[in-house]
Amino acid sequence: MVGFPVGATSIITLTTDFGVADSYVGAMKGVILTIAPGTAIVDISHTVPPQNIAAGAYVLSGAAPYFPAGTVHVAVVDPGVGTARKAIAVETDRSFLVGPDNGLLCPALQAMGALEGGTGRLFGARAVELTRDAYFRSPVSATFHGRDIFAPVAAHLVRSVPLGELGRPIDCLECPAAPTLTQGGDAVRGEIVYVDHFGNTITNLPEGLLPADPIVEAGARTIRGLSSSYRSGPLVALVGSSGFLEIAMQDGNAAAELGLRVGDQVIVRSST
Amino acid sequence: MVGFPVGATSIITLTTDFGVADSYVGAMKGVILTIAPGTAIVDISHTVPPQNIAAGAYVLSGAAPYFPAGTVHVAVVDPGVGTARKAIAVETDRSFLVGPDNGLLCPALQAMGALEGGTGRLFGARAVELTRDAYFRSPVSATFHGRDIFAPVAAHLVRSVPLGELGRPIDCLECPAAPTLTQGGDAVRGEIVYVDHFGNTITNLPEGLLPADPIVEAGARTIRGLSSSYRSGPLVALVGSSGFLEIAMQDGNAAAELGLRVGDQVIVRSST
Amino acid sequence: MVGFPVGATSIITLTTDFGVADSYVGAMKGVILTIAPGTAIVDISHTVPPQNIAAGAYVLSGAAPYFPAGTVHVAVVDPGVGTARKAIAVETDRSFLVGPDNGLLCPALQAMGALEGGTGRLFGARAVELTRDAYFRSPVSATFHGRDIFAPVAAHLVRSVPLGELGRPIDCLECPAAPTLTQGGDAVRGEIVYVDHFGNTITNLPEGLLPADPIVEAGARTIRGLSSSYRSGPLVALVGSSGFLEIAMQDGNAAAELGLRVGDQVIVRSST
Repeated sequence: MVGFPVGATSIITLTTDFGVADSYVGAMKGVILTIAPGTAIVDISHTVPPQNIAAGAYVLSGAAPYFPAGTVHVAVVDPGVGTARKAIAVETDRSFLVGPDNGLLCPALQAMGALEGGTGRLFGARAVELTRDAYFRSPVSATFHGRDIFAPVAAHLVRSVPLGELGRPIDCLECPAAPTLTQGGDAVRGEIVYVDHFGNTITNLPEGLLPADPIVEAGARTIRGLSSSYRSGPLVALVGSSGFLEIAMQDGNAAAELGLRVGDQVIVRSST
Repeated sequence: MVGFPVGATSIITLTTDFGVADSYVGAMKGVILTIAPGTAIVDISHTVPPQNIAAGAYVLSGAAPYFPAGTVHVAVVDPGVGTARKAIAVETDRSFLVGPDNGLLCPALQAMGALEGGTGRLFGARAVELTRDAYFRSPVSATFHGRDIFAPVAAHLVRSVPLGELGRPIDCLECPAAPTLTQGGDAVRGEIVYVDHFGNTITNLPEGLLPADPIVEAGARTIRGLSSSYRSGPLVALVGSSGFLEIAMQDGNAAAELGLRVGDQVIVRSST
Repeated sequence: MVGFPVGATSIITLTTDFGVADSYVGAMKGVILTIAPGTAIVDISHTVPPQNIAAGAYVLSGAAPYFPAGTVHVAVVDPGVGTARKAIAVETDRSFLVGPDNGLLCPALQAMGALEGGTGRLFGARAVELTRDAYFRSPVSATFHGRDIFAPVAAHLVRSVPLGELGRPIDCLECPAAPTLTQGGDAVRGEIVYVDHFGNTITNLPEGLLPADPIVEAGARTIRGLSSSYRSGPLVALVGSSGFLEIAMQDGNAAAELGLRVGDQVIVRSST
């Protein structure tokens, strides 16, 4: 399964809801650099809304596919820390993911083609429950597995410890049902899955399902036609950089001004 | 023109309005590290106010001059992404700058002595419009040139691709008029060009134009004399770390408490 | 005193109240990378509340002990910049700390066992007042010693300049009185020393002083028993990842909902 030189690039990315004010992220980095000196640590985001697993999963899935082979992605949005939820590590054909088994890793694995959508079943990848405490900090605190389990495990993976050494194999991850996406009659129905920093509302409607000249309904608003840039009009629908339908406002915050939120339905019809 | 060992230090800095919550910055870093492994990526700021080109330009100009020779500075505050605005790269005698041709790079180039103030004309530097899509990600999205054009171009510059390979030469950048700065009668008149995190209001009045014992008028307030530190009084005027007149409050936020904003006039008279 | 290979890992950490929006942190990084190319710069936090020395000291002390030997920690929360407060550097048996002598470095040094609590007296460590301006940027601004003194000194330490070269030895640091912690009658009394990003309120009551089955009083609330995770109940008292008593709310912000603030008293009694 391993087709890349493990450890060649030595990159660990971090995606958490720890915020940037406290010492938590710094402590994780110190642990990593102690075990694996020279590792390049890349922050993806630490301002995932507290305990919002879906938002963290979305952010990770939007960045992880762009990293080079061998990268280890650590994600910690972990409201269940210290409970029975599993700690896991996954190896795909090009990278590793480490975090709690609470759905956080699923969209990134799906984006990498390593998970059957919605089922949690791995596809050309393998996973372990992290049970070998020789690879943890000692003692393990009940509340900070980021520092005591996930950071040290990631550092050991960078140092080429084989996945199988880290725990017992598991076949299936805990993944939530995917957001609703249906086709029927003259319409495709999806939902808003993320609102970004600019207030752009991003849906789960992929470019391939959109008609050539669509009418987009979101909240109380109807938008005619697809734009090619954010400056094509005051309110625009367009295919964003991840390949999905977005609704955006030129010089404004579409989510705030239209009252749109994650989970709201978006309907696309053909105008012809 | 190239007097430094290109690629010797392999630093890329990033200045954007992408925020730190989403996947956008992480995706850019993944693209850079895939093309140019080992590059040190330094975040200057990702919290430039959305689409505020002048603020982004100010921040970049305050940090870029301190980096070592060979550094590649990428800046993306780009409301016109996907429209006719040009994507450009500039090479000065000690560094590279990459971004949209919307004024974002002008103050940094001026701070480096590579641009004639206000004209957009380069001075001992050269620039290209980025037209060679062999150096872009493919396909290029209409909305995320940071990931698809600017990050890969910067990574190729770090890998010593010559500037001339990247596109067609241009002579002149699109630069806005400089903030007003006039001398006349008994006064020097400038304006507030930036408000920082502490609420310090920074003007375009350079130390060299200030009289020895000035009277500073800003908003409804008058401040007598220049202080040497932020703790010299409740409300102080002083020459800040970038060499320009600032107005600050000890233990307070001068901009908020005095109602001062970017663009407000500041007048300095001699008290003698 | 030096038992580690100075410069072997070449890590500099940064803890400041400069925020992440402005150019200040970027300028410090540029200065460091110019003097000490290849240094790994790790951000601990730049969003310490402006001029809140105690909060900055707490954050630094929570991260610094996890870094490898030889790390140089730079901290700048410095309301007295430009006044008579000293600029200092400290060398412990495993790392360096650089910053203003205003109490900011004390808790980290105490956490590393290099300071006698509350006295400011070093213990198996040594310190200098930074007086050798050959190791500063020139000229030194009155308002930005982070860029002009602390960053260059840290970079010179990474390059193995001996501490004694940097200034004149000092015996004692300016450290504030420690937060109140008293035992008497049937109770242990401490106080809240930090509120984190999740709203968890962290006290100075160490695990070792807590009775087996405690009753915790904070604000108007009483909590019975210690929990082992954040999900054991709606309002929990538990020993956090730093080994001290915390009060937290499942899926909520304990500090905001209970009106708890830094300095508030927390009393622990035995229920038996």
